[in-house]
Amino acid sequence: MNDDADRTRYRALLHPPGTHHIDVLDQRLLPHRVQTRRIASADEAAIAIRDMVVRGAPLIGAVGAYGLALALDADASDAAFADAHAMLDATRPTAVNLRWALDRVHARVASLSPAQRAQAAWTEADAIFAEDVSINAAIGRHGLSLLRDIARERQRTVNVMTHCNAGALATCALGTATAPIFLAHDEGMPLHVWVSETRPRLQGANLTAWEMAQRDIAHTLIVDSASGLLMRRGDVDIVIVGADRVAANGDVCNKIGTYDKALAAADNAVPFYVALPSPTIDWSTPSGDAIPIETRSSTEVLEVRGRASGGDADGVAIAGDGTRALNFAFDVTPHRLVSGYLTERGVARDTAALLRLFPERAPR
Amino acid sequence: MNDDADRTRYRALLHPPGTHHIDVLDQRLLPHRVQTRRIASADEAAIAIRDMVVRGAPLIGAVGAYGLALALDADASDAAFADAHAMLDATRPTAVNLRWALDRVHARVASLSPAQRAQAAWTEADAIFAEDVSINAAIGRHGLSLLRDIARERQRTVNVMTHCNAGALATCALGTATAPIFLAHDEGMPLHVWVSETRPRLQGANLTAWEMAQRDIAHTLIVDSASGLLMRRGDVDIVIVGADRVAANGDVCNKIGTYDKALAAADNAVPFYVALPSPTIDWSTPSGDAIPIETRSSTEVLEVRGRASGGDADGVAIAGDGTRALNFAFDVTPHRLVSGYLTERGVARDTAALLRLFPERAPR
Repeated sequence: MNDDADRTRYRALLHPPGTHHIDVLDQRLLPHRVQTRRIASADEAAIAIRDMVVRGAPLIGAVGAYGLALALDADASDAAFADAHAMLDATRPTAVNLRWALDRVHARVASLSPAQRAQAAWTEADAIFAEDVSINAAIGRHGLSLLRDIARERQRTVNVMTHCNAGALATCALGTATAPIFLAHDEGMPLHVWVSETRPRLQGANLTAWEMAQRDIAHTLIVDSASGLLMRRGDVDIVIVGADRVAANGDVCNKIGTYDKALAAADNAVPFYVALPSPTIDWSTPSGDAIPIETRSSTEVLEVRGRASGGDADGVAIAGDGTRALNFAFDVTPHRLVSGYLTERGVARDTAALLRLFPERAPR
Repeated sequence: MNDDADRTRYRALLHPPGTHHIDVLDQRLLPHRVQTRRIASADEAAIAIRDMVVRGAPLIGAVGAYGLALALDADASDAAFADAHAMLDATRPTAVNLRWALDRVHARVASLSPAQRAQAAWTEADAIFAEDVSINAAIGRHGLSLLRDIARERQRTVNVMTHCNAGALATCALGTATAPIFLAHDEGMPLHVWVSETRPRLQGANLTAWEMAQRDIAHTLIVDSASGLLMRRGDVDIVIVGADRVAANGDVCNKIGTYDKALAAADNAVPFYVALPSPTIDWSTPSGDAIPIETRSSTEVLEVRGRASGGDADGVAIAGDGTRALNFAFDVTPHRLVSGYLTERGVARDTAALLRLFPERAPR
């Protein structure tokens, strides 16, 4: 685990041992500025999640868990605990990891006396963090086998496409969709990554491309709607995306645009894999249509943010005043379009296989 | 024809009668600034096409034709004419209307004496312009029937999705994909238009949304990759897009992202129509795979242009310096995904039907 962690040259989240705060990279400033923010209260944790200082399903789960620990530091009463839980849970509705992490801390500390709760919560949050590190590494190893198979068969550079950021910046270590890429690059496999910019928030352009550049991995930025053409041209060997929530039937809720890529992959016989840490599986939601899709501010669509010509961050308006926008943050990819789920215990082709890999998670 | 022309409150292109220049809207400045540019030489016409002051397959055809007339004004020799033809033809490779219009002017004037050529070229360019006006109106009438059928069946607001700009700004009058929308709105049909922003150049956000706002047509801007989700939710009744070139087998070359929308439409049984003026059909190219796809500057992907917070136009960088981009301007939608081609002579379901509508265009 330490070994894998060391491969990551930056960390989206750190809990300095012995302290009562966490440090997070402010992802809103990347790639133009690398700046860490200290989070020392549950309120700050909630704001960081809501405002997307941190984002990515596994990462917001871990930050949520630390947020509960911070809340218990301040007030360990049942009422304060319930308030903090509700506040953190309300920050973002779609990714299931947040609720999973909050519920896990809750289960760990609820039966304890208030005096014992904060320490137990910090320990549990650290455990969630450590587990995510090892989940990332295991997903990486299983995904690496897939990439090795392609490299062996094609005998040339392997072209991977990803969408949004399911990278180190979305997790506590190597990322989910990126972990196989990083491991393949480390072992010298010739690789090239198509990075889909991911409007409106541009996590592909801002974050995934930056992660690739940091690691000297060959990559090319494309607009989101270029993916179909590239697959039709035979320029994509495999698509690997992350997930914010996978329903019991295998439907995948992930960043808006994932469904379009899955359709293009299916139409061109390109394998389409979902990197899926087990905390992202939601056995209690029957299908993707039952997953709440977050609607975010229309400003994210109407105004594109980046580094202006003067060097400062700015937003440019792309439409006239008479135009409104709608901003669904996620979409649903039907399970029939998924070639496989890349979990920490191996690759599952469908939910029956997922249940065999995670029997302890089976719905009762 | 006059009647239809009058419905357009702005014109992308005008040739003031009796003059030896044309006036075009500078589409790079929209929607934030409405400014006309005068074009008084073939060089200026070529630059306007290349730099996308004007764009849209029918419009660049007409501007190309006027460009030849301007060239002949300056020098009507065979050599100068050939040079101007080659220069204009090289500005943009994908849309076939440009070559069609240049060849048409060429055929009209080549056999004339140099002294007669310029006037004949102006007349021919005016004829191309006038034909485009009437093609737009006819496409509008045929598309209107489709929209009326949907309105009758659904008994509620009709939701149309379009991509890029196949609007008044892409043509000499009502547009192609937009013509049915404008006519339906004029007759009071409850309509709502999903406008896909169309990265990288944002013709949807900058141009189509502006056209809708100008005409008080209800519309909502979305990121390109939201179209799949919206179709899955049942929020789209019909997709109508334009075309830059349609091959002999019916494959459609159009703005990058069109293929993704066609896939999503097929997956959700949403009718997918291509507004297709006959000059856009290229019977000499057998399939979409043989159409040259323009690759434009990566800067269009790496830098998003709009109105900065200070009010001026600016571009914001969305990726770090270590990231490169690839910028294919068009993609190919296989004919199997097209519900119908909306031409000036009616709706054709396939290329056999297109040939019946346009027997004089049949390949020899």
